[in-house]
Amino acid sequence: MRSTTQLKTMLRAPRLDFLMEAHNGLAARIVEEAGFRGIWASGLSISASLGLRDNNEASWTQVLEVVEFMADAATIPILLDADTGYGNFNNVRRLVRKLEQRGVAGMCIEDKLFPKSNSFREGKAQPMAAMEEFIGKIKAAKDTQRDEDFCVVARVEALIAGYGLEEALRRARAYAAAGADAILIHSRLRTAFQILAFMEHWDRPGPVVIVPTKYYTTPVEVFETAGVRLVIWANHLMRSAITAMQRVAKQIHDERSLVGVEPAIAPLEEVFRLQNEAELQRAEAQYLPLADLEADAASQSAHGTPLHVRSGTDVA
Amino acid sequence: MRSTTQLKTMLRAPRLDFLMEAHNGLAARIVEEAGFRGIWASGLSISASLGLRDNNEASWTQVLEVVEFMADAATIPILLDADTGYGNFNNVRRLVRKLEQRGVAGMCIEDKLFPKSNSFREGKAQPMAAMEEFIGKIKAAKDTQRDEDFCVVARVEALIAGYGLEEALRRARAYAAAGADAILIHSRLRTAFQILAFMEHWDRPGPVVIVPTKYYTTPVEVFETAGVRLVIWANHLMRSAITAMQRVAKQIHDERSLVGVEPAIAPLEEVFRLQNEAELQRAEAQYLPLADLEADAASQSAHGTPLHVRSGTDVA
Amino acid sequence: MRSTTQLKTMLRAPRLDFLMEAHNGLAARIVEEAGFRGIWASGLSISASLGLRDNNEASWTQVLEVVEFMADAATIPILLDADTGYGNFNNVRRLVRKLEQRGVAGMCIEDKLFPKSNSFREGKAQPMAAMEEFIGKIKAAKDTQRDEDFCVVARVEALIAGYGLEEALRRARAYAAAGADAILIHSRLRTAFQILAFMEHWDRPGPVVIVPTKYYTTPVEVFETAGVRLVIWANHLMRSAITAMQRVAKQIHDERSLVGVEPAIAPLEEVFRLQNEAELQRAEAQYLPLADLEADAASQSAHGTPLHVRSGTDVA
Amino acid sequence: MRSTTQLKTMLRAPRLDFLMEAHNGLAARIVEEAGFRGIWASGLSISASLGLRDNNEASWTQVLEVVEFMADAATIPILLDADTGYGNFNNVRRLVRKLEQRGVAGMCIEDKLFPKSNSFREGKAQPMAAMEEFIGKIKAAKDTQRDEDFCVVARVEALIAGYGLEEALRRARAYAAAGADAILIHSRLRTAFQILAFMEHWDRPGPVVIVPTKYYTTPVEVFETAGVRLVIWANHLMRSAITAMQRVAKQIHDERSLVGVEPAIAPLEEVFRLQNEAELQRAEAQYLPLADLEADAASQSAHGTPLHVRSGTDVA
Repeated sequence: MRSTTQLKTMLRAPRLDFLMEAHNGLAARIVEEAGFRGIWASGLSISASLGLRDNNEASWTQVLEVVEFMADAATIPILLDADTGYGNFNNVRRLVRKLEQRGVAGMCIEDKLFPKSNSFREGKAQPMAAMEEFIGKIKAAKDTQRDEDFCVVARVEALIAGYGLEEALRRARAYAAAGADAILIHSRLRTAFQILAFMEHWDRPGPVVIVPTKYYTTPVEVFETAGVRLVIWANHLMRSAITAMQRVAKQIHDERSLVGVEPAIAPLEEVFRLQNEAELQRAEAQYLPLADLEADAASQSAHGTPLHVRSGTDVA
Repeated sequence: MRSTTQLKTMLRAPRLDFLMEAHNGLAARIVEEAGFRGIWASGLSISASLGLRDNNEASWTQVLEVVEFMADAATIPILLDADTGYGNFNNVRRLVRKLEQRGVAGMCIEDKLFPKSNSFREGKAQPMAAMEEFIGKIKAAKDTQRDEDFCVVARVEALIAGYGLEEALRRARAYAAAGADAILIHSRLRTAFQILAFMEHWDRPGPVVIVPTKYYTTPVEVFETAGVRLVIWANHLMRSAITAMQRVAKQIHDERSLVGVEPAIAPLEEVFRLQNEAELQRAEAQYLPLADLEADAASQSAHGTPLHVRSGTDVA
Repeated sequence: MRSTTQLKTMLRAPRLDFLMEAHNGLAARIVEEAGFRGIWASGLSISASLGLRDNNEASWTQVLEVVEFMADAATIPILLDADTGYGNFNNVRRLVRKLEQRGVAGMCIEDKLFPKSNSFREGKAQPMAAMEEFIGKIKAAKDTQRDEDFCVVARVEALIAGYGLEEALRRARAYAAAGADAILIHSRLRTAFQILAFMEHWDRPGPVVIVPTKYYTTPVEVFETAGVRLVIWANHLMRSAITAMQRVAKQIHDERSLVGVEPAIAPLEEVFRLQNEAELQRAEAQYLPLADLEADAASQSAHGTPLHVRSGTDVA
Repeated sequence: MRSTTQLKTMLRAPRLDFLMEAHNGLAARIVEEAGFRGIWASGLSISASLGLRDNNEASWTQVLEVVEFMADAATIPILLDADTGYGNFNNVRRLVRKLEQRGVAGMCIEDKLFPKSNSFREGKAQPMAAMEEFIGKIKAAKDTQRDEDFCVVARVEALIAGYGLEEALRRARAYAAAGADAILIHSRLRTAFQILAFMEHWDRPGPVVIVPTKYYTTPVEVFETAGVRLVIWANHLMRSAITAMQRVAKQIHDERSLVGVEPAIAPLEEVFRLQNEAELQRAEAQYLPLADLEADAASQSAHGTPLHVRSGTDVA
């Protein structure tokens, strides 16, 4: 099944499913190995891991390259957090073509203005896009995609921006009518109040996706009962990596030694396994003639005796 | 002090110092905050985090972009693990120019053939570059750099490739004579035997750098006494991130909830702090006229009442 | 018909066809409009247009980006001049996947060593790759491609490197046997002598491609009769652009005026036509609500009267 | 003299000077060889050469890469046509840092909204940026630059957008007051009427730059007398390349031969000269040991006799 079809099936299935955040190829592979059926390529996590802010400081092609590495590293579908689409409807069209080429299953765009700011950020209210303009983006995306199952998720920022439930529903309905494959309704409250109110009034022209970063104490069964189809765990691998790296960096710095940290971190062999080193070994046996390396080694013979180091020679 | 000068000073100081691995902008900032005075931009870690193998699967410009993000995110010097220089002397020249432009303090090149394989990898012995060819690279790099303190570290793979101490010393001396600012002598034994033997015979035409990934149980004081100048902790942040991400992904997957992991991972506020969100808030106050946002918000007034969400409004 | 299938059909058809060089998206569109059925993405032309030398100074992903722009700009198939494949068999595998994603119909790889030099360059003979190593690349490419019609053309450099006809034929046969979809036999003589001798001894296990940059005075009918399937005009658009730009730059500089050059260069309207500006105008009408622009213009009203400039208002 | 200082000096000198358009490294070198003292990295030309439209279809980092190739290929200063700065003040700050690193001497930003459209394009009036917002960009750019001579040119689109002379002057004065190193006043009329009216009322708080693409029939002496400092020939190399490539592609296609075009296009030797092939030959002699190549050639000896092809062996 194509990754686009996998994602669309998740959105349409009558039960709750989950996307786990990843921000690079390595994290994408880890998400897949943990058993998740899909990946959220988080804008916040990608920008943070690059050392940037979640304000479109990375260009859209830099984000594209990150998500391409992720798509190469995983077989489960990826939904890209594509912010506002990085411009107007025309930028969205170009983005859709590029995502499809790279095997990304879908994108989520939000009704804010470029350059965006993170929705959980303190400070000024963030201006929203005019609804009609955003509808144009959705239509342009749907008309551009070549794979009929490429998913366009429309993220409604009305609750974040301080507009009420009415406006959130008005926009969500309009986006669904414009062709969005799902609606992501976003809230920054610490309870699920807004989300559940939204679901109560949602007459279900399409599936709903949520991101319970703030209101995570509500059990997912509540959302499932309310009719939510997809929950995104939006940034937790990046946040776990921060804590681990801070701790290990501190410990190595203070102890001037690796002895204390070695037992607590992945061994090199695990790194090689995640890189699928074994596949390369097999491929070298198949495609790389031994003669090549041996001839080279021979040409060194004037300068010393090559002792072919192999597995097991790490003797003291 | 320029970052190049900082790195050169570390190499020349009569005491041991340390570089800690980073593989993206986020890790670079964490290394700096932990108190390290320099960063090792590890080829293994960068490729692994991209989801690739340490066999020059990423192009040299993709690596360059990663290290540029790192240089933007940290103020301490970065030494790039530049593998073989990604080609011949001419590729090395181009690389040096590009690294200098991006504020990278130095590069380490190794005397193997492109495309390289990781030195700790099991399997076939890896062919070495002809010594004269590698000397040409060192000279080309030194003649190309515009900042006199840009550091070129020459990594000797003779011990890894199975040649003896004699060959390692012969190459190390030749590389130092060709202008290398330091020699990195690499070993994959689990004890420091080879390194200490090397130091015993090293008549010190230049500083020596080591990477005790395998022989980490030897206290660094032993290396300091032996005359080593710089120790590289080569891949441990990446490895700590793997373990953390695997654990958190597993837990969230199994528990279908964030409740269990939240206390153990960095809060969103810490992410924003690492991104230096505060600087952007100040800059917005300085450069972004309020009128702009308010005008926009006003234009939405037909569709609802904007309730400007600010700090503290996360009421339930 | 997929572009890969178009290219494969050209190679297999019992008559001579032609590829015309292009080096960027603009040139690619011009090639298509001139009536050619395929494009040669020349390594020499691409590097020269970037301001670089034909020695793999551009990274393979930089070349990939150029050819992606070309594939976006044209509907006819593109054969990428991929030099040596930019490394070993593993680099070739990654390249094939990336070319397929971007809609490039095929690649030509040559049996030299990375980094390559241009075959027409004066100076030292260029070392060839070991035949078995190159065969490994061909096999790896064919096993990697997902579209069965993606074309792998194997370029034999034996005649360029000074080996005789025997060696050229030996290699060509081995490459065809390894799965190459065509053989490109290259010669730098000013007559077609070597090519015709090759064709005479070629027992046709696969189609032959030639690049008559040097021996262009021989009419193509001679090659067609000899059994050649594809002729590549390898670098002539780039060379025509050089002459034109040199002439126009000189004239504008000397005359301090555009008056002399305007009649001889494409008008702006032709630039817009080549950019397919008309499609964007139609799309804006479809996807971009007018209200948007008008609201904005209105918000400027305090500062002046917007006089909506439209076609035909260029009054003097 | 640094390239930034060269450009600033041109802007401040009491006489008229010229920038000639280039759109890639090759064109940049040609502009320099023609005798110009500066280069205009045109947004229209760069996008057209990539096969894209002048509507920010290329990401800002893709444009950055083009201008980096140009800066590597030329020694004269480059002024980048940076459209709107590709976002808000924060995107502008990042852009300035990246341009300085790559040796680009200055940038021109225009007071329109992202994504922009070409100013000569037919159709809807294009909305302008709020003046205060654009002033924030100028200030942010000036505060960000580290080289005091990096030039920020503020382009006033008021006349293009249909606002009158008053508004153009009001904005120009405000931009100069905000720190812009020069004002580019743009007009799409076919006469110099608007420009000369502007100059008449310009009390000269800073130098003025013009782009006489449409009103080119007015002799530059008129502008010099009016006090204009810099004239940009904005897109003529790209347009000359189009005409040349269209003609040559057509001719080769129709004649199925190179014979007719060869005398009219740059010979290969001229391509190699523009690529500075000679420098590489010298560097190879210096840095690349002959033994290397000969050893390799020797290893081929089982398969044929290497006949080292050198200059002069192109016998018929």
